[in-house]
Amino acid sequence: MATTTWTRRHILSLIDLTLGEYETVLQTAASFREVLSSGRTKKVPALQGQVVANMFFEPSTRTRSSFELAAKRLSADILNFSPGTSSLTKGETILDTAKTYLAMGADIMVIRHQQAGVPQAIATEMDRLNSGVTILNAGDGLHQHPSQALLDLFTLTSVLDPDNPRLELLEGKKIAIVGDILHSRVARSNIYSLTAAGAKVHLAAPATLLPKAFLQMVAQKHQDKLFLHWELNPALQDADFVMTLRLQKERMTANFIPSLREYHQLFGITRDRLKLCNPNVRVLHPGPTNRGVEITSDLMDDPHLSLIPNQVASGVATRMALLYLIGISDR
Amino acid sequence: MATTTWTRRHILSLIDLTLGEYETVLQTAASFREVLSSGRTKKVPALQGQVVANMFFEPSTRTRSSFELAAKRLSADILNFSPGTSSLTKGETILDTAKTYLAMGADIMVIRHQQAGVPQAIATEMDRLNSGVTILNAGDGLHQHPSQALLDLFTLTSVLDPDNPRLELLEGKKIAIVGDILHSRVARSNIYSLTAAGAKVHLAAPATLLPKAFLQMVAQKHQDKLFLHWELNPALQDADFVMTLRLQKERMTANFIPSLREYHQLFGITRDRLKLCNPNVRVLHPGPTNRGVEITSDLMDDPHLSLIPNQVASGVATRMALLYLIGISDR
Amino acid sequence: MATTTWTRRHILSLIDLTLGEYETVLQTAASFREVLSSGRTKKVPALQGQVVANMFFEPSTRTRSSFELAAKRLSADILNFSPGTSSLTKGETILDTAKTYLAMGADIMVIRHQQAGVPQAIATEMDRLNSGVTILNAGDGLHQHPSQALLDLFTLTSVLDPDNPRLELLEGKKIAIVGDILHSRVARSNIYSLTAAGAKVHLAAPATLLPKAFLQMVAQKHQDKLFLHWELNPALQDADFVMTLRLQKERMTANFIPSLREYHQLFGITRDRLKLCNPNVRVLHPGPTNRGVEITSDLMDDPHLSLIPNQVASGVATRMALLYLIGISDR
Repeated sequence: MATTTWTRRHILSLIDLTLGEYETVLQTAASFREVLSSGRTKKVPALQGQVVANMFFEPSTRTRSSFELAAKRLSADILNFSPGTSSLTKGETILDTAKTYLAMGADIMVIRHQQAGVPQAIATEMDRLNSGVTILNAGDGLHQHPSQALLDLFTLTSVLDPDNPRLELLEGKKIAIVGDILHSRVARSNIYSLTAAGAKVHLAAPATLLPKAFLQMVAQKHQDKLFLHWELNPALQDADFVMTLRLQKERMTANFIPSLREYHQLFGITRDRLKLCNPNVRVLHPGPTNRGVEITSDLMDDPHLSLIPNQVASGVATRMALLYLIGISDR
Repeated sequence: MATTTWTRRHILSLIDLTLGEYETVLQTAASFREVLSSGRTKKVPALQGQVVANMFFEPSTRTRSSFELAAKRLSADILNFSPGTSSLTKGETILDTAKTYLAMGADIMVIRHQQAGVPQAIATEMDRLNSGVTILNAGDGLHQHPSQALLDLFTLTSVLDPDNPRLELLEGKKIAIVGDILHSRVARSNIYSLTAAGAKVHLAAPATLLPKAFLQMVAQKHQDKLFLHWELNPALQDADFVMTLRLQKERMTANFIPSLREYHQLFGITRDRLKLCNPNVRVLHPGPTNRGVEITSDLMDDPHLSLIPNQVASGVATRMALLYLIGISDR
Repeated sequence: MATTTWTRRHILSLIDLTLGEYETVLQTAASFREVLSSGRTKKVPALQGQVVANMFFEPSTRTRSSFELAAKRLSADILNFSPGTSSLTKGETILDTAKTYLAMGADIMVIRHQQAGVPQAIATEMDRLNSGVTILNAGDGLHQHPSQALLDLFTLTSVLDPDNPRLELLEGKKIAIVGDILHSRVARSNIYSLTAAGAKVHLAAPATLLPKAFLQMVAQKHQDKLFLHWELNPALQDADFVMTLRLQKERMTANFIPSLREYHQLFGITRDRLKLCNPNVRVLHPGPTNRGVEITSDLMDDPHLSLIPNQVASGVATRMALLYLIGISDR
């Protein structure tokens, strides 16, 4: 397990993250988890005086709260941007909004946007201006959601070795990712991190939500690690982990699936279906969950099977690690 | 005046609060009021590192700000949940939302919801999970609003003895509660605290807003302390305190009252009507007020008669006391 | 350059600000700019324990964030008021809202309102109550926006002498203010500060946006310092600074201008037109900008010509100065 000195300025996607960077994130998150669990003083002064601008152009409570708490734990000052009341409605461009926060003194911008590429565009502009500002992509369109995939990675490796989460623990593990792959930036990011760790990733979805084109786009360099299935069972067979994805209800009205009930019939995760998996299988979901659609309610609440609360808890520690690494590194 | 060591995990209603617990709240609030009024350092480090999640499913600025300021004064970290942009709109259940905040590391959840029973349901789930999380009901439907009644209790007893507010000060006092009793969680909570203190509580409202069923439901064990009137004067006669309630304007369109003007004519509190009361009478209102409906404008602004600013100020001290007691107690 | 001991309780308008007060603001802002640029500890404990209530009845992200960051840098506690979810929608008056924040313990209220005079009305009420609360006008209707004009003043004087910004630097300078003067509280405030500094202020706008009545109202005591033009070139001729104003797009539909394109044709600032100015001319805009309407896009992004980022950065330092001066002064 070789960690690395952090030199990356922005975290925009996992496409080119190195193995050393993955290990550094895991180790840093593990050390922050320790801070969070040790008695009452759950704060560290690492980012004191620094300003984290939470720029969620696409509304979100869950991810925004997770980043906000992570930043508070690091003693940063936080500016929350709310698109509803912002200058965007007055015709300002997104880059101008970002430059306004830069001029105010933002050190780190956490950016979510419904359009793919916005965090990258802001990062490019910030670099062009030699601003020193670092960008953390908190989800952009159908592109990437790196902090989610990294918290998933931290969750998975922590299950396998709580004291020492590291990539090699996932070597050769079979991980099924089930659901609306087509519209999931979570899946897109996880494919990179999980295959980098040496896991075998099996995607399963109806053909409308997992087009063949997807295979060509993503899978070329992962032919021995990435597998596609248009039915559920081959993906579940002997799986070590099952990662379900949120099905957005508007997909049904757009005719991607015939009905929620039929979707659940064919791709919903149930206690019964998990019998196909490795006996120690654990289930993940990025949330928020539609109980009874992607996953049955009783499965979700089973502490022996569901890793969903672990994912949320890992989120704070992992995001502390990311803010810390891009916030304090010398570049 | 016997205070008590605090062992209660959640504050959901006042139905079963003990006399010792009431006294402890009053004394703790009094000591925080001292902190707030002593020069510039108005903060104590009591809840440093703890996370207070302000979960106001029903929007509110007034009560949310009061809790937020109380938590800041105790040096807690605060997560504000905003229902408009939350996962609830994406189909997540309320319990799942609460479990997400639990997994993020929330220690105390302050919950307001338009449905009665939601804080209790979340508390039950948090206990089932052995989470250690404590719940503070900030108003649920037509059920309870315990922090409001406790701040009212602190306001009333502080008027009678600023240095040593305690229950026995209200023994035998006559307190009129006037207005929309039917829809008031404030009234429901105050009935418990005021009768517990030994006050005589006189409810006055039009019959549509104070149904007989209410008498049967609530008053059985308070027959010598709780009195109902369908006109105003008998309630005001010799009253020591008059507590008016907010009349929501939508009640008129729902035909509970013929018109705001007629309501004011019959149940509005005026300087003239207060002549029926004890000469030292003081008036309360939980706010926000409809000037000229529940109470005349000049009465509201009279510092000798109105305790409304005292109530707001008491709110911060009382909520500091509640957060402190449930936040630091050993259970 | 004679500074002054600060005794003013509220900052509501610049109409009667003294030269000494202007100098004090500039010097205090300069010292806070030093704090902000010196390494990582960008905070001072000046307002520790004090509560700043950000009451933006008119929504704003830019100005609100600037004040919020300024208050955080001074270690104050901040209460954010959001009109959408407030008691205002329940019929409460603005003065009652302010009195609620007073009773909660607010020390400073930063107020923006779409109606002119609201900050003054709240200040009057706070004084009547001997509350000790100080009011900072963050923009009221078409009346005043003092913190914007003061940050502009700080920006302009800092360009001329970064180490020692002071009024006399603007003596005799020609400053063109171009655009929708009629609807601009920014222009109204800047006219007072810039003429006080001894600058020659040239207003340029279409006649519909710069009525003659305006001249009579404002210019009487500034006849040798304030000049009006209904075309652009005479204002730009030999100008040292050009301050453009935001054109709200709804003005077009209200027939104040024939079209955005025609407005840009006649009053838009372009690189070409700046050739009329002093060779060292610099351009300002209070933001948010309509690129290609008030100013061309390339001009806005030219670091040698545009002072827009300086204005935003000056905003935090200037607002720290204002909060500090009204927050700590003995009165």
